[in-house]
Amino acid sequence: MINSKDNQTLSILNHSCAHLLAQAVKRLYPKALFWVGPVISEGFYYDIDLGEESIKEEDLVTIEREMKKISKDGKRIYREEISKEEALKRFQDDPYKMELLNAIDDTTVISCYTQGEFTDLCRGPHVESVKQLKHFKLLKVSGAFFKGDVNNKMLQRIYGICFETKEELEEYLKLLEEAKLRDHRKIGKELDLFCFSDLVGAGLPMFTPRGTIIKEELQKEVERICKENGFQKVFNPHLASIKLYEISGHAAKFSDELFHVSSSKGHDMVLKPVLCPHHTQLYASKTRSYRDLPIRYMESEKQYRAELPGAVSGLSRVYAITVEDGHCFCRVDQVKEEMIRIVNIIKDFYSRFGLWQSKWVSLSLRDPLTPEKYIGSDQDWEICEKMLEEVSNQLGLEAIRCEGEAALYGPKLDFMFKDAMGREIQIPTVQLDFATPKRFELVYINKDGGKTNPVMVHRAILGSYERFMMLLIEHFAGALPLWLSPVQVNIVPVNDLYHIDYCYQIKERLAKEDIRVEVDDHKQKLNYKIRQSNLYKNPYTLIIGDKEKENNTISYRLLGSKDTITLSIEQFLLKVKNEINNRVIELS
Amino acid sequence: MINSKDNQTLSILNHSCAHLLAQAVKRLYPKALFWVGPVISEGFYYDIDLGEESIKEEDLVTIEREMKKISKDGKRIYREEISKEEALKRFQDDPYKMELLNAIDDTTVISCYTQGEFTDLCRGPHVESVKQLKHFKLLKVSGAFFKGDVNNKMLQRIYGICFETKEELEEYLKLLEEAKLRDHRKIGKELDLFCFSDLVGAGLPMFTPRGTIIKEELQKEVERICKENGFQKVFNPHLASIKLYEISGHAAKFSDELFHVSSSKGHDMVLKPVLCPHHTQLYASKTRSYRDLPIRYMESEKQYRAELPGAVSGLSRVYAITVEDGHCFCRVDQVKEEMIRIVNIIKDFYSRFGLWQSKWVSLSLRDPLTPEKYIGSDQDWEICEKMLEEVSNQLGLEAIRCEGEAALYGPKLDFMFKDAMGREIQIPTVQLDFATPKRFELVYINKDGGKTNPVMVHRAILGSYERFMMLLIEHFAGALPLWLSPVQVNIVPVNDLYHIDYCYQIKERLAKEDIRVEVDDHKQKLNYKIRQSNLYKNPYTLIIGDKEKENNTISYRLLGSKDTITLSIEQFLLKVKNEINNRVIELS
Repeated sequence: MINSKDNQTLSILNHSCAHLLAQAVKRLYPKALFWVGPVISEGFYYDIDLGEESIKEEDLVTIEREMKKISKDGKRIYREEISKEEALKRFQDDPYKMELLNAIDDTTVISCYTQGEFTDLCRGPHVESVKQLKHFKLLKVSGAFFKGDVNNKMLQRIYGICFETKEELEEYLKLLEEAKLRDHRKIGKELDLFCFSDLVGAGLPMFTPRGTIIKEELQKEVERICKENGFQKVFNPHLASIKLYEISGHAAKFSDELFHVSSSKGHDMVLKPVLCPHHTQLYASKTRSYRDLPIRYMESEKQYRAELPGAVSGLSRVYAITVEDGHCFCRVDQVKEEMIRIVNIIKDFYSRFGLWQSKWVSLSLRDPLTPEKYIGSDQDWEICEKMLEEVSNQLGLEAIRCEGEAALYGPKLDFMFKDAMGREIQIPTVQLDFATPKRFELVYINKDGGKTNPVMVHRAILGSYERFMMLLIEHFAGALPLWLSPVQVNIVPVNDLYHIDYCYQIKERLAKEDIRVEVDDHKQKLNYKIRQSNLYKNPYTLIIGDKEKENNTISYRLLGSKDTITLSIEQFLLKVKNEINNRVIELS
Repeated sequence: MINSKDNQTLSILNHSCAHLLAQAVKRLYPKALFWVGPVISEGFYYDIDLGEESIKEEDLVTIEREMKKISKDGKRIYREEISKEEALKRFQDDPYKMELLNAIDDTTVISCYTQGEFTDLCRGPHVESVKQLKHFKLLKVSGAFFKGDVNNKMLQRIYGICFETKEELEEYLKLLEEAKLRDHRKIGKELDLFCFSDLVGAGLPMFTPRGTIIKEELQKEVERICKENGFQKVFNPHLASIKLYEISGHAAKFSDELFHVSSSKGHDMVLKPVLCPHHTQLYASKTRSYRDLPIRYMESEKQYRAELPGAVSGLSRVYAITVEDGHCFCRVDQVKEEMIRIVNIIKDFYSRFGLWQSKWVSLSLRDPLTPEKYIGSDQDWEICEKMLEEVSNQLGLEAIRCEGEAALYGPKLDFMFKDAMGREIQIPTVQLDFATPKRFELVYINKDGGKTNPVMVHRAILGSYERFMMLLIEHFAGALPLWLSPVQVNIVPVNDLYHIDYCYQIKERLAKEDIRVEVDDHKQKLNYKIRQSNLYKNPYTLIIGDKEKENNTISYRLLGSKDTITLSIEQFLLKVKNEINNRVIELS
């Protein structure tokens, strides 16, 4: 997918197109007032106050037509520089412009851009003529609170995108159509995976039994792999005193995102924004010897962020994410082995989704020109960066050196994958941290009986279940791999009366082997049931009639195929179990 | 265990003994002021303000000696009734008494009790003479905030207990010694099961890897049984809008116990005090037909209560309990089968701890004299009470009819067990609820195409993991059943050098079969290691020397036994696996 923000040509084009949009809106809705119109990675938007009027999805065509007309007229775009004083005078009737200008330093030179009858405040740069703005599309209109604050007035936000060529625009719109079909919110509803309730509130998804199966299967898988690699599960509260985060530094970092917890009895706590500080306290609960290390903790519990109420959406942005988080406390001489261990976990896990082969790895190092921006001794950094590089070479990761991409407290390896839409997924990471153990005064008794700070290795495998499920749903367009499917085998009787008992026999046999199996015993036509089964993206649909009943067999159709294949129950069972156990992705 | 509060004789005795304590304290600490001295189930206490002075554990002996002296003097105890006005005058120098008196209605007659030189305000009744207070013991002294509010002054609270006979007192003190040894806070620390951190805060236990194993094993077990019985796991947020609880009625019921969640962005939510309202919203997320019922949800997530900061302790009272909660939505004609299903789950689960045979069951019904105190139609109540009784008879529960013990919304079955100390455990319950589905306007499409409210069945199996673990730890005095033990087999080499490799071979073989096994490779003497293994209450300790290595065998000692038994590795493996799978409790 494109990113209009990172590409300079696209950025200028889209920014100019936002002005074109504003000019057209002003012509059609003379009372319109304009707030801001920035470039975003998916094009641009403009926030507009239309007073009593409102723009609907169907009005976008009219606005687009007006934009095309302006473009055809081909007016030049002029830049003009004026003083703040002059600007305040010129825009005195526009409260939004006044708000913008008042936030600007008195001595700053203000720039305006004019095209035909329309002038807007803007830093620029812009294209030279509206003529260059030919290949654009308005995408949607939605409400947006002024400055993102729910207590403020609701403005109207129109989104659009602009390209240099017709082909680029068409390709993008096609991708957008595809993305809409794969939208996890749409599929989540269709497949009954999660839901929302006005009484519970926005930003708080509830997982249905079907969605919970996916979450639990993912959890079992990642925990199984991590346990094999020496991680021990722990279980921590979601609350803590703010003191904990003052020490870790998160109280300052997340001050705007913290949820505060209070009661009529005077309690004053916060909902945890991250998990690492709790893990430091578990480590600190006992005296540790150099022989006890490494100590590896993992858990899958919620972490909280006070997102803007207007910004929460689907599973992608919520108030609480359920994070599969883990930390390893070890000696410096153990770091390399720990890194290898964790990289192998990541490889193991992402191979199960066919994503590993699309990976690229960033060896995220210090910026050597600004060592003062980082915590820890030069010696520690050199040792660790060298170890990371060795790990990358040893494992054939071909990591790309990205200087300046390290974390504050240490270098890291970041893993990037491509999903089916070509979008980049960045989740897994392995990070070295010398600072946190020192902040919490964590130590172990070294060989000489003295005290040494352990190194802390942070690692993410799947990140948060909410986000990972969103990615999976969109990557697989809802047709999840067999081992993750809420229903793995759906049994449909040809005739509800004659074949249902045999269907239940099959179900019992499969369920005994922990296969998730259902019988569709609704009073409906066969074809309707098969269509329903496909809508629910069930990997295997069994069609059971006279022949199957007589011969003690089953006939199945694979999702997306019209071929019907007949096997004995035991053959089918073996096949399905084998595919589940081996996490087979492409079924055949 | 006794309950001084429920037994009238004991109650009067203990209340009188509180006055005896106060008299003795006043003699030894003339500046002492007294707040309240109530009877509690474990005896009595008195809250005392000693100004600058303080009483330590070792001072209790001196106070007891003074109490004995007063008792021997044998003064009569006189009751006197005075007006509030008179009382205000008489106690004008005592701010605590003034506080008490000001809270009392002006027309109320106040009673005072006097023994010798000591007079105290009290409703009574008391014994006739201090002579009757012979068999008492002061148990401990601790701090207690005035009125339980952390913002108030800290008073000193002395606890004691009094009996009619010496034998009763001695037996009780012996039980108390035993209970101290079994205290889950002590064992939890010794066995490294959970811990606390000042930075995280009181009332927020953190579970270590060893403690988390117990929690997870319990969860797997209860979820396995419930899944077999048709319960489906769901996954809900911990937050909700207060609107949800205004409808359910919990906002009013728990107003003092609610945690409020806010942020700098204007969020206003609460941490869920109960789970049922979230489950109603999952039910409401789709149209349900009579053919879809029963729908059974379960999950194990946290529920929050803003306990008094001074009241939190160990796992018994915490800010968040992790509740294994479940609800079934069904038709009236399905209720009986659902009840049977749930009772069987309870029986199945508690049999695994050897507790089922000690049960008694309460058939908790409406008080027939005050039907207006309950929600729902008489007809519904009659049907349901009858069904509950039938279930009880059919399953041979011999439930005892307890009129007036029903919940507001419906009758229930409550299960009571006795732990190893003879204390009553009351956790599992099955409750019928007609009211909640109506409050949330939950419906299903009935056979005629109309809408009907489903019945909601609430059930608890193990309740909260925190409380259940506390009960288990104290019941088993830390020596948990094999299937729950964090380490099931601990391998100790006779000689660290010669036998360690063979120990690791054994470990690998056992770990492959999912047995939790460790090798003690610390450089310590054999006897020390065996002692350590017993302190950690490991069920099996293997002692591996020359003979075992030569013959490819293992020798084990069972916890609490000095016998050493030799078996082949495979024989031992089979034996242990069998005991784990069958949830054997008494090992042999």
